[in-house]
Amino acid sequence: VKTLRIGFQGELGAFSQQAIVQFLGAKSTPVPHQRFDQVFTSLKNRQVDAVAIPIENTLHGSVHENYDHLLHHEFRILAETRVRIVHNLIAHPGVSFRKIKRVLSHPVALNQCLDFFAANPQVEKVTHYDTAGSVKTVMEEGWTDAAGIASALAAAIYGASILKKGIEDDHRNFTRFFLLAPPKSKLTLQDDTSRPWKTSMLFSVRNVPGSLFRALATFALRDVSLAKIESRPLRGRPWEYLFYLDLMGHAEDEPVQNALRHLGEFTESLRVLGSYRAAAESIE
Amino acid sequence: VKTLRIGFQGELGAFSQQAIVQFLGAKSTPVPHQRFDQVFTSLKNRQVDAVAIPIENTLHGSVHENYDHLLHHEFRILAETRVRIVHNLIAHPGVSFRKIKRVLSHPVALNQCLDFFAANPQVEKVTHYDTAGSVKTVMEEGWTDAAGIASALAAAIYGASILKKGIEDDHRNFTRFFLLAPPKSKLTLQDDTSRPWKTSMLFSVRNVPGSLFRALATFALRDVSLAKIESRPLRGRPWEYLFYLDLMGHAEDEPVQNALRHLGEFTESLRVLGSYRAAAESIE
Repeated sequence: VKTLRIGFQGELGAFSQQAIVQFLGAKSTPVPHQRFDQVFTSLKNRQVDAVAIPIENTLHGSVHENYDHLLHHEFRILAETRVRIVHNLIAHPGVSFRKIKRVLSHPVALNQCLDFFAANPQVEKVTHYDTAGSVKTVMEEGWTDAAGIASALAAAIYGASILKKGIEDDHRNFTRFFLLAPPKSKLTLQDDTSRPWKTSMLFSVRNVPGSLFRALATFALRDVSLAKIESRPLRGRPWEYLFYLDLMGHAEDEPVQNALRHLGEFTESLRVLGSYRAAAESIE
Repeated sequence: VKTLRIGFQGELGAFSQQAIVQFLGAKSTPVPHQRFDQVFTSLKNRQVDAVAIPIENTLHGSVHENYDHLLHHEFRILAETRVRIVHNLIAHPGVSFRKIKRVLSHPVALNQCLDFFAANPQVEKVTHYDTAGSVKTVMEEGWTDAAGIASALAAAIYGASILKKGIEDDHRNFTRFFLLAPPKSKLTLQDDTSRPWKTSMLFSVRNVPGSLFRALATFALRDVSLAKIESRPLRGRPWEYLFYLDLMGHAEDEPVQNALRHLGEFTESLRVLGSYRAAAESIE
């Protein structure tokens, strides 16, 4: 069996790679990219079979950049998953915590562990370009007085040890990821029939009073339940808004099909991104 | 006349300080804080007269953390403004670009200037904890082979020179800021009657099919136009959703008052955050 190649943004050991493990188990090959546009181009050029991209975070909101890429490519969402962002203190095996003088990580991660730094004033915060990359650097440089802050996966990948688990201030930090494939991809996942279907779409309407109301009426009139709605002004088109919408149901369900046809009557553009099983709600 | 003290998150020279200048001109005293929760606590304890906080960014989405703080405090929005995120290459006065070997900044800013780094492979990217802080460090250390990437305001504050203006890849990067004050604050801004009123609110509804539709009906039935709507699952309360909503109009307009009363009949919670003049749409 050929191993699937799955693109993602970041270094090996990034949280996106954790999402890939949740999507496909360990039987796929993660292919790192520096930037999100490169992840999408890689999929477009069939250099990878699928990609895992973050789409929203409980603290930082929707990743508009990736919604933009979804708008400009014809890919299909195969699955969603939620990854809890757990920050671990990671060092060389055998190094004890009292030896640690410097802690490297991405500033966003450092800022999410301020209680840890307040409780340990003897360690210095050092900014690094990447979370998983901080572990890579500590290991490659052979530093025994430094640690990185990254995922447990990063510790495993670089042969490092976790000194302290879950040092993040807020344990309710989750990122939602999509697994994307080309429209004609034959890639299928195990179908967990215990979970309800979800369908994601993008559409734009002109900002006339009530246009959003009419858009939502197409679903409400057919008892279709919504899981997410978000508006965003469309760049360079004053008074036109782009909407992100997730509904409960499959795009081929009859009420959903009717609602989509009705919605298409007055939207400027409408793109169904895919139907997939809802991720299990993690405990928050 | 007593100078107003305005709290913000970041170092002196941060984009939040640019927002303060846009709100109040140069006649206020910016008061830096390390974290957003400290900004809100500072306002609660009356250590500052008002605060400027980022609420959404065109690339990175809504700042949920600050919406959460708005939910848990009783502050009022006095004004909104949009700041274009312009990244400048900033060094010691007299230093020429060909002397620069290292460029410091926050990784998010470094990643927003990748075209510049691709065109200038002789300079090394160095991650720093803050954009404005990178200029502060270059100046304090007296480095003549290093530059920071930050706002023009940071260059002015630290007595540095702009070597290159606007090196960001995407010029359509804007952050929207709110100016907040305690509910009984007497602080008033000049009223620009040429701009329409906007009103922001937070409300939560149970996730029953059509609940959002009913919520929006209260506005649509009264021809009240919406400028933003965003849903977010409420932490720890499955099936209950929090909505961010901006409408065009003042909370004391009769149709808006009627809509809000109607909305309150079936929302779990409803908080009007304030009415303010809409920011001028910047050229994108």
